[in-house]
Amino acid sequence: MAAPTATLLITSRDRAGIIAAISNLLYSHGCNIINSDQHTEEQDGRFFWRIFLASERLGLDQLRALLSQSLEALLPDIGIKWELHDSTHRDRMVILVSRLPHCMMDLLSRHHFGELEADLAAVISNHPDMEPMVRAFGIPFTLIPVERAHKAEAEAALLAALRELKCDTLVLARYMQVLSGDFLRAWGKPIINIHHSFLPAFAGNSPYRQAYERGVKLIGATAHYVSEELDAGPIIAQATIEVSHRDLPRDLTLKGKDAEVMVLAKAVRDHLQKRVFIHQNRTIVFD
Amino acid sequence: MAAPTATLLITSRDRAGIIAAISNLLYSHGCNIINSDQHTEEQDGRFFWRIFLASERLGLDQLRALLSQSLEALLPDIGIKWELHDSTHRDRMVILVSRLPHCMMDLLSRHHFGELEADLAAVISNHPDMEPMVRAFGIPFTLIPVERAHKAEAEAALLAALRELKCDTLVLARYMQVLSGDFLRAWGKPIINIHHSFLPAFAGNSPYRQAYERGVKLIGATAHYVSEELDAGPIIAQATIEVSHRDLPRDLTLKGKDAEVMVLAKAVRDHLQKRVFIHQNRTIVFD
Amino acid sequence: MAAPTATLLITSRDRAGIIAAISNLLYSHGCNIINSDQHTEEQDGRFFWRIFLASERLGLDQLRALLSQSLEALLPDIGIKWELHDSTHRDRMVILVSRLPHCMMDLLSRHHFGELEADLAAVISNHPDMEPMVRAFGIPFTLIPVERAHKAEAEAALLAALRELKCDTLVLARYMQVLSGDFLRAWGKPIINIHHSFLPAFAGNSPYRQAYERGVKLIGATAHYVSEELDAGPIIAQATIEVSHRDLPRDLTLKGKDAEVMVLAKAVRDHLQKRVFIHQNRTIVFD
Amino acid sequence: MAAPTATLLITSRDRAGIIAAISNLLYSHGCNIINSDQHTEEQDGRFFWRIFLASERLGLDQLRALLSQSLEALLPDIGIKWELHDSTHRDRMVILVSRLPHCMMDLLSRHHFGELEADLAAVISNHPDMEPMVRAFGIPFTLIPVERAHKAEAEAALLAALRELKCDTLVLARYMQVLSGDFLRAWGKPIINIHHSFLPAFAGNSPYRQAYERGVKLIGATAHYVSEELDAGPIIAQATIEVSHRDLPRDLTLKGKDAEVMVLAKAVRDHLQKRVFIHQNRTIVFD
Repeated sequence: MAAPTATLLITSRDRAGIIAAISNLLYSHGCNIINSDQHTEEQDGRFFWRIFLASERLGLDQLRALLSQSLEALLPDIGIKWELHDSTHRDRMVILVSRLPHCMMDLLSRHHFGELEADLAAVISNHPDMEPMVRAFGIPFTLIPVERAHKAEAEAALLAALRELKCDTLVLARYMQVLSGDFLRAWGKPIINIHHSFLPAFAGNSPYRQAYERGVKLIGATAHYVSEELDAGPIIAQATIEVSHRDLPRDLTLKGKDAEVMVLAKAVRDHLQKRVFIHQNRTIVFD
Repeated sequence: MAAPTATLLITSRDRAGIIAAISNLLYSHGCNIINSDQHTEEQDGRFFWRIFLASERLGLDQLRALLSQSLEALLPDIGIKWELHDSTHRDRMVILVSRLPHCMMDLLSRHHFGELEADLAAVISNHPDMEPMVRAFGIPFTLIPVERAHKAEAEAALLAALRELKCDTLVLARYMQVLSGDFLRAWGKPIINIHHSFLPAFAGNSPYRQAYERGVKLIGATAHYVSEELDAGPIIAQATIEVSHRDLPRDLTLKGKDAEVMVLAKAVRDHLQKRVFIHQNRTIVFD
Repeated sequence: MAAPTATLLITSRDRAGIIAAISNLLYSHGCNIINSDQHTEEQDGRFFWRIFLASERLGLDQLRALLSQSLEALLPDIGIKWELHDSTHRDRMVILVSRLPHCMMDLLSRHHFGELEADLAAVISNHPDMEPMVRAFGIPFTLIPVERAHKAEAEAALLAALRELKCDTLVLARYMQVLSGDFLRAWGKPIINIHHSFLPAFAGNSPYRQAYERGVKLIGATAHYVSEELDAGPIIAQATIEVSHRDLPRDLTLKGKDAEVMVLAKAVRDHLQKRVFIHQNRTIVFD
Repeated sequence: MAAPTATLLITSRDRAGIIAAISNLLYSHGCNIINSDQHTEEQDGRFFWRIFLASERLGLDQLRALLSQSLEALLPDIGIKWELHDSTHRDRMVILVSRLPHCMMDLLSRHHFGELEADLAAVISNHPDMEPMVRAFGIPFTLIPVERAHKAEAEAALLAALRELKCDTLVLARYMQVLSGDFLRAWGKPIINIHHSFLPAFAGNSPYRQAYERGVKLIGATAHYVSEELDAGPIIAQATIEVSHRDLPRDLTLKGKDAEVMVLAKAVRDHLQKRVFIHQNRTIVFD
């Protein structure tokens, strides 16, 4: 039987000998490093390491127990944090969407044909429009309308639904409601959003109209983690495409959709494959 | 002998029949349209037409006289404006630079090897550093230092120098002084600038540091015409390149140089080939 | 009531006065040129003109009759050919697919949400796999198996089905059968195909494996019209994406899918909007 | 005084424990790993590791001696090979060029302004055209004409010149002579070449003409190591740029120059920074 594989993510303050200590520990317990990516932030000396390994002798639970006992002891006083992700585990993903279907459709399709390493637990929307399409893919659909006067209740319902669904990974695929700081703190896990501009240009509403009015020759899309300040969270992926004077705001909207779809898919894929570290307001993406 | 060729630029308010009237006039006087690009701004109905033509019967002076007599008469009341650019004419270009050589070097090199349709009249700088390199290319170099307390005098000297040089096309190739509104009005012709970000993101100082701090995954460059508001003039060309968490501000600076060089060269080429119309704060670029 | 709009495509041998003659004819019958793109092939003097017009006085049938009577007479001996496409007409599109769903899914989705200017008449496949998904979108599905020994019968069935469906635009969205010269001649209309490499590199089978073995740093996709010689027809659109030594053939396959989807969508959109002329083995694409 | 830094390149057959053994050895002798990039080729299990390190206790000569004694002993039977590159060492680079200046000019300029981590020992050409420009940069120029009947003598002169110049890094910046297998074997070090197409499309002569005739919508450039089979060596970097039906072969030549310049500069930079491993006919590029 093939050895179980897992992704080990490690971050700490930098110190000489981290790689030696951990690679020794892993080797001495029969773990083979298949791939490894390492980065140290020059400005604050933060250390990041992503290891894809095969555990030849220990089961992954035993390996997890070993790491719990040994890592902190081996490397004290550097604030070491780690996660071990079993390669056979599949995140439970939930998509939030409003009325624009393209990003949701792309994720539905990739999920349906086995391209995403996640189970799609549900699509939740504040509008009923997407329900038939979501159900056609055999995915549960939940309507949680958001009325301005009752936003707190809507967020409470959303939170309850996500917990009920045991959601790991939440993706805003053109969900047009701003999530409150209270919601973000209560939820407590990273949320992926797609914004239809190359942030920080054109944050907020109607970025394609803003782009038209500024007369740019490139439009873009940005996938980022949601933070309390709107459109200001850590950026995961960005892309731009060329436009010209011929493109009206409606053309920018049409062309930009392709960039949004690609950038969101890349960010979701990297997130699900545990390739992304968040550090302050930046990301380290090992792709 | 081959017929003389020229580029005819026409702009007016839109009206039915402009193309018919002008193409008829040209045809009836022996002008053959070789290429034509046309655009109408949907939002305000402004009409733009770029025609590359061969004049089989008239010399270009005769053609210019014909257009002066006929165009306004043929198409009254639509505010028609036109320019006829003789293909054998070469603009006189002046480059302004401070201490960063890469954009200037690229233009010097393209000019030297005959790639630009312009004569490089001089390079002017507020620092002496570039003089030996400029002279090695056989190009006159003028030093016009800019002291904060005597900026008006420096701009007066610059204006005098440009007039003396009979400059048509002024290019700021990483010139780090802000030109005043008084200078811009006195000069009165378009000035091309390169900014080292994808405007409107990261206008102003230190855009690569700003980009690093925001954690973007793309950096860019923008060539634009100078306007009184800093970094807010009509955009001619933009490009972006991918970066990652590995790139410190100094890496962004190094990688970004390539984008700056390419984008400025494209903008200068399009400008010299009379491919760019300025309309309000936008450009129409027929490339 | 708004004037009817249409796209007029004209091609001929070049001659002075074509633009004047036709723009006059159109203007004198109340046609207003909204956009116009023109190109002359330098090497053989072939003239191409795409006009988007509003017909203020004549219905489009009357305009078509006028053009039939007048164009050849006005411009004799230059082999003029023209097509007038009513903007309200929607092509009937048929998608051919085998077992890889991504390009088909993208077109199904764009069609479903109103992005394509065509009616999707059916999806036809040589395998049954796609039927449930196609039917979930409410689109007819036809299975036409292709056995090596009975390929001619399969092609006859396909031809009959396309005629029955009154298909205008046929798109091969990863259809893995080679269509015979006999079929192409019998069908007689352009067929759009997507090939998963930047042609002419890696024509034929397994381009991602070929790309891996050659160690390229870019992979690509090419949308082209089908010709009798495999993967050698006129190219409509191409794109490339960066890859690295980390990418195995299966990674190239996964990453390349995004390029295939985008490039095919662009080609289909340009084709449906009558932006593409085919000239010998090249295309003129006015986008 | 700051600790000396160096780049350590290691390659071997894969085996469990390589990372542990080497990181331990380095740590126990006071070497701190600042950055590390690792890759294992899945198909043949070849292991590649690039380490950027600071040696806190040993001088680099001592470290080199330590590695010589210890690495093979520590990890026997896996064919381990290694190189240690002192960060203060600068390669001696020689550029070969024929008559097209753009790639050479770009490298001259980058070198002059301190962007390349190499000393430019000389430019060698088979034509005298570039001499004045090269000398204006203060770089020695050597003319080695190549006559068809006396090619072997010319290659012998070239080899002698390179040895005399103590050349480490040889760059063909649009050098239009094919180097013989005899020369390549005698020289014995990697040679970087720029080819003006996205190889393997359009190998050999006149790639821009070939590209025009095929009607591609992208043109490209490829930097690769020279091998005996023409344009078939390991690829280091590639880029493509969009073109259209408007572009004649001369336009492709003009536009393609920018891609050539950028791609060659990237390849030279990566090579000088010891980021490139060659493995069979592929490269591993840690950038």
